[in-house]
Amino acid sequence: MSIPLSVVPVVGLPEVTEGDRLGELVAGATPLEPGDVLVISQKVVSKAEGRVRRLAEVEPGSEARELASRLDKDPALVQAVLDESRSVIRAEQGVLITETNTGWICANAGIDASNVPEEGIVTLLPLDPDASAQRIRSEIRRASGNAPAVVISDSFGRPWRLGQVDVAIGCAGLSPLEDWRGRPDRSGRELTATLVALADELAAAADLVRDKDAGMPTAIVRGLGERVRGDDGPGAASIQRPSNDDLFR
Amino acid sequence: MSIPLSVVPVVGLPEVTEGDRLGELVAGATPLEPGDVLVISQKVVSKAEGRVRRLAEVEPGSEARELASRLDKDPALVQAVLDESRSVIRAEQGVLITETNTGWICANAGIDASNVPEEGIVTLLPLDPDASAQRIRSEIRRASGNAPAVVISDSFGRPWRLGQVDVAIGCAGLSPLEDWRGRPDRSGRELTATLVALADELAAAADLVRDKDAGMPTAIVRGLGERVRGDDGPGAASIQRPSNDDLFR
Repeated sequence: MSIPLSVVPVVGLPEVTEGDRLGELVAGATPLEPGDVLVISQKVVSKAEGRVRRLAEVEPGSEARELASRLDKDPALVQAVLDESRSVIRAEQGVLITETNTGWICANAGIDASNVPEEGIVTLLPLDPDASAQRIRSEIRRASGNAPAVVISDSFGRPWRLGQVDVAIGCAGLSPLEDWRGRPDRSGRELTATLVALADELAAAADLVRDKDAGMPTAIVRGLGERVRGDDGPGAASIQRPSNDDLFR
Repeated sequence: MSIPLSVVPVVGLPEVTEGDRLGELVAGATPLEPGDVLVISQKVVSKAEGRVRRLAEVEPGSEARELASRLDKDPALVQAVLDESRSVIRAEQGVLITETNTGWICANAGIDASNVPEEGIVTLLPLDPDASAQRIRSEIRRASGNAPAVVISDSFGRPWRLGQVDVAIGCAGLSPLEDWRGRPDRSGRELTATLVALADELAAAADLVRDKDAGMPTAIVRGLGERVRGDDGPGAASIQRPSNDDLFR
């Protein structure tokens, strides 16, 4: 392939509120082409879905109070994290890493207090991010006639490496893992262990054009049309490593 | 920012052999613009630097033989991994994860047997990937008059998530971590914990245009000129999380 890829921020989206149809808003803000991949940040999806919580209304239980004291965190925030989680992976050094109810492992169950309309409100991850991606894709299809792939991204920290990168927590219309195993390499020998996390690389690429203090939650990656599929595909949940195959829990 | 970003594969690079000046080869293959970021895969850097090893010439010691037997791996490969490593992080389920002598934590110390000229030859990570990036940048500056930022990338697996993404193991000419902490968010509240691993996101974006079986080791990310600095900056080693701050060793 030698076609250049372009990554274009979507500008002119209105401030999103609960009940908004994001797919319609995006299709109205920018022309979408077949073969586009729309990458949209979790926060705006959560706002549209009403996945927000007012910390003043959260009553911390004993586990949350104990963890909050140990980690020097707000007990209400810790309770909100526990409510969104299946299990605690690490709680040390002021860091709370859990497995969310949808199977993602990240800090604070993905709960975030920045870029929200009011102090004391936090966003929660969508209840089913793959379903959210499918719904946004359907809305775009109805509004524009085109059905770009949709990736819902969030910024996750990593073991061993400082900083966050954007990764995919939901997707529709592409295979989130691209399997090169078994194909010959340039010398004709079989490539081993090459399973590319395509959806995560798309999320990372889109983050390069996002201006985090300008509220720019959406970007289009253009030029990977051969990766966009007609059906919605297996979703980003298929990226989750099964726990019995994971050495870091 | 509303300028679209483009990611362009560099085509027409010759097969690289030991002693080649990669910066000159790239500058000869494609016009480079000021403000470009050149992302180049570790393997081609290692070949140019002679960082290859013939497994038939590696004599496995007792630790390597024991680990190899337990993991069902080639004892010579395991010895080569140990030679490149400071410490073993995990050795379970057929997977050997180590901290390399340069501080990266990854499978097999980054040793790779695909896309090499001969069976039985493996590539090792560059001895000092940040120095490699600086040298390539200097070669480009001398050959073309322009000094794009240079990122050396490799494909790493991740805990909790299947598949590999490309990350940065060397860089020159940009700040690998972009610090948004302390800046106001859209609502005027301070953004917390937003330290973007820019060099890793650049590596991931470049991988989207690489055709792994076509030997396409290099891509240019164009449109982020405001991130390219005159000096070489702190290098990708600054991405390494200090071990006392790491919950997953």
